[in-house]
Amino acid sequence: MSPFAELKREAYEANVALPRHGLINLTFGNASAIDRAKGAFAIKPSGVDYAALSPDDMVVVDLDGRIVEGRLRPSSDTPTHRKLFLAFAGVGGVVHTHSSHATAFAQAGRPIPIFGTTHADYFNGPIPVTRKMTAAEIAGAYEWETGNVIVERFAEIDPADFPGVLVNRHAPFAWGPSVAKAVETAVAMERVAEMALMSLALAPDLEPIEPELLARHFKRKHGASAYYGQV
Amino acid sequence: MSPFAELKREAYEANVALPRHGLINLTFGNASAIDRAKGAFAIKPSGVDYAALSPDDMVVVDLDGRIVEGRLRPSSDTPTHRKLFLAFAGVGGVVHTHSSHATAFAQAGRPIPIFGTTHADYFNGPIPVTRKMTAAEIAGAYEWETGNVIVERFAEIDPADFPGVLVNRHAPFAWGPSVAKAVETAVAMERVAEMALMSLALAPDLEPIEPELLARHFKRKHGASAYYGQV
Amino acid sequence: MSPFAELKREAYEANVALPRHGLINLTFGNASAIDRAKGAFAIKPSGVDYAALSPDDMVVVDLDGRIVEGRLRPSSDTPTHRKLFLAFAGVGGVVHTHSSHATAFAQAGRPIPIFGTTHADYFNGPIPVTRKMTAAEIAGAYEWETGNVIVERFAEIDPADFPGVLVNRHAPFAWGPSVAKAVETAVAMERVAEMALMSLALAPDLEPIEPELLARHFKRKHGASAYYGQV
Amino acid sequence: MSPFAELKREAYEANVALPRHGLINLTFGNASAIDRAKGAFAIKPSGVDYAALSPDDMVVVDLDGRIVEGRLRPSSDTPTHRKLFLAFAGVGGVVHTHSSHATAFAQAGRPIPIFGTTHADYFNGPIPVTRKMTAAEIAGAYEWETGNVIVERFAEIDPADFPGVLVNRHAPFAWGPSVAKAVETAVAMERVAEMALMSLALAPDLEPIEPELLARHFKRKHGASAYYGQV
Repeated sequence: MSPFAELKREAYEANVALPRHGLINLTFGNASAIDRAKGAFAIKPSGVDYAALSPDDMVVVDLDGRIVEGRLRPSSDTPTHRKLFLAFAGVGGVVHTHSSHATAFAQAGRPIPIFGTTHADYFNGPIPVTRKMTAAEIAGAYEWETGNVIVERFAEIDPADFPGVLVNRHAPFAWGPSVAKAVETAVAMERVAEMALMSLALAPDLEPIEPELLARHFKRKHGASAYYGQV
Repeated sequence: MSPFAELKREAYEANVALPRHGLINLTFGNASAIDRAKGAFAIKPSGVDYAALSPDDMVVVDLDGRIVEGRLRPSSDTPTHRKLFLAFAGVGGVVHTHSSHATAFAQAGRPIPIFGTTHADYFNGPIPVTRKMTAAEIAGAYEWETGNVIVERFAEIDPADFPGVLVNRHAPFAWGPSVAKAVETAVAMERVAEMALMSLALAPDLEPIEPELLARHFKRKHGASAYYGQV
Repeated sequence: MSPFAELKREAYEANVALPRHGLINLTFGNASAIDRAKGAFAIKPSGVDYAALSPDDMVVVDLDGRIVEGRLRPSSDTPTHRKLFLAFAGVGGVVHTHSSHATAFAQAGRPIPIFGTTHADYFNGPIPVTRKMTAAEIAGAYEWETGNVIVERFAEIDPADFPGVLVNRHAPFAWGPSVAKAVETAVAMERVAEMALMSLALAPDLEPIEPELLARHFKRKHGASAYYGQV
Repeated sequence: MSPFAELKREAYEANVALPRHGLINLTFGNASAIDRAKGAFAIKPSGVDYAALSPDDMVVVDLDGRIVEGRLRPSSDTPTHRKLFLAFAGVGGVVHTHSSHATAFAQAGRPIPIFGTTHADYFNGPIPVTRKMTAAEIAGAYEWETGNVIVERFAEIDPADFPGVLVNRHAPFAWGPSVAKAVETAVAMERVAEMALMSLALAPDLEPIEPELLARHFKRKHGASAYYGQV
């Protein structure tokens, strides 16, 4: 039996959860889970229909980008996932979708403003957007460079405080301590984007949430003083 | 057998109805049902997935906030529910969601204007919004204070005429004589919010519904002269 | 066996089709089918949940408004249906919904402009809206008067050319030679309303469809020169 | 056994996929698949409910428009499909829908602007819109002329680079090397239209995607240098 059986199942469960949550159309999107001890992650194969996917189709790739296990070609976005695993030490899973509302903000190059407590339950401020990629980055190792512009955006902010990003002109990425948590954050990003879009329609100059309310909600679910959920 | 078995089943049915009506994403939201004679209410446990919920997971809490029955930690919003049960004598059930369209109004700090008869079938006027909470309220017993700002908003209006509210920057709460009726009102709030948003897009300066039409529809379903439904 | 068994089944099928097409939330909405030879129509009972409905729950009412068959109270909108059956000789079925996008136009008091061929396949021009009802009409036999303002709106247009209407501040009604066709038109009204709303967002001053294109599409499906569907 | 059994199954699968992807309401829309060697294509019968469709209901029509096999009348849009098969040599399947967001652009007579990589994965630029049809074209062989205005729009662009179009005032058509691929493109057109509409709400003067990013994404999936999916 494969030493990656459990990791592949975890990645598989996350991948098939994406269309179930309405985050995916066609084959846009992928999820990966890492085993830090083994230095390898399991990721969706490229361009395979979600309905046809099985745990065994997952491809295991190490942190140098070599395929460790799997019959199929890994997602073309694998280098972006690899870069994020390398740069963000606490991350156990990465999710990429083209969910409609979050992608609308990414296309417009606008961060998702923080207007309420739903957002504050997941992000410690607006959901950041990367700078646009340069022609050289696009012409080069494009997917790896996509990871680079994400990491560059986090030079002065903590990926634990902001567990997701919008890649300019492209779409959202989310992450978390586990890939299941990253899926949850991807769902939250989409719903928060939808609500922000409607709040902006109602109040185009709406101010962000008050800092004390943001802090209260974010800390209710994160860090030492968290008191949400079961012990 | 527990003396709260029936109450827990009622609360359970209401909680699982929320995602079925599309009002809930992830674990945002909760419903509770009170037994006035016993002075205790059953509420959803904190942060538990709706798909995994059973009637026995409901937590029974008394009106002083003590857990009377249950293995799990109750919803972090329990003090808000308790405050509403204490202040609103006729209320048998409370529902809290982050449904998208109603939350968009809450985030914008705007009441939901009353533009048609769908709205008038449930509310005797615009759906009210609370004032913003102060830094002291947020830093203190936050969920209890959330209940307080709701109750404050109803100083001069009747919770039977307005069976729901938007908490500023947060999301909707709904209530009713039973928790099943509170779920129905939560569904109505979401649909009414969606239609108001679209009516505003069509006519930004739209006037509210005429008072006589409001009265006719509200009274068709409420009070001594109601003639909707079965006897 | 009831002489209305078939009619009740037809009305039942139409009623349960409404939530399946996403036109209904909660218990808003109803459908009725008439047997012209017998001078009676079958309609949904008032305030009964769609999931619990059976063909035998349908209430049969004659054109004078007397209950001919059925244990339950008929829909509170029954007088509106009756008025339409009396005034529009060719109509075999009537459908009333609060579908979101069409209701948004009704609330705004705006006809649904005709911007494309989807609309022209069903309506020979914009979908009309009634005038607002007077205080006297609202205070009087309200549901009967609702029928009256609809009929008044059709003084100079043909209900076969315009098989539906928006009641101002209220919601849409649709009709057709059969109740099944009325359901189809109610679906079309909702989709056409949604597309019109988005076309207006893209082009606020958009002109209506050209008359020759309207005529071509409407006649493709209606009248002597129709060539859509099977013979 | 029919020599067209496989072709009819392929067309059938594509037709029933349309409502499953939410692209179709009622009977609006149709899909066809061509066998180039036999010079004939299978298409949906006119006005038949998707739920009642079987592979054997598909109608086989040759490139001169004669029915080769089938008991039913073919889709009224058959001449449009035939024209596209005649004009676009590499096309193996054609899909027509009235999907809501893409149709909103068609009704407004606006191309769908290219704002992100989701769009660039399918189209090598904005999704084109035809000119309006003349009164003579509408009064004449209308569906054939619909094909003509599409083909005219592609005088200077390649249908392989732009595998779909919006017919002005009408709705989208999509095509591809197979009808399954055309269905996928029709889904992409709808999602891309939805995201463009929202991006425009956020940034009314948004510039199109940078040419190098467009080229990178389009070529990732098309042509000799494609590296997406399995080998």
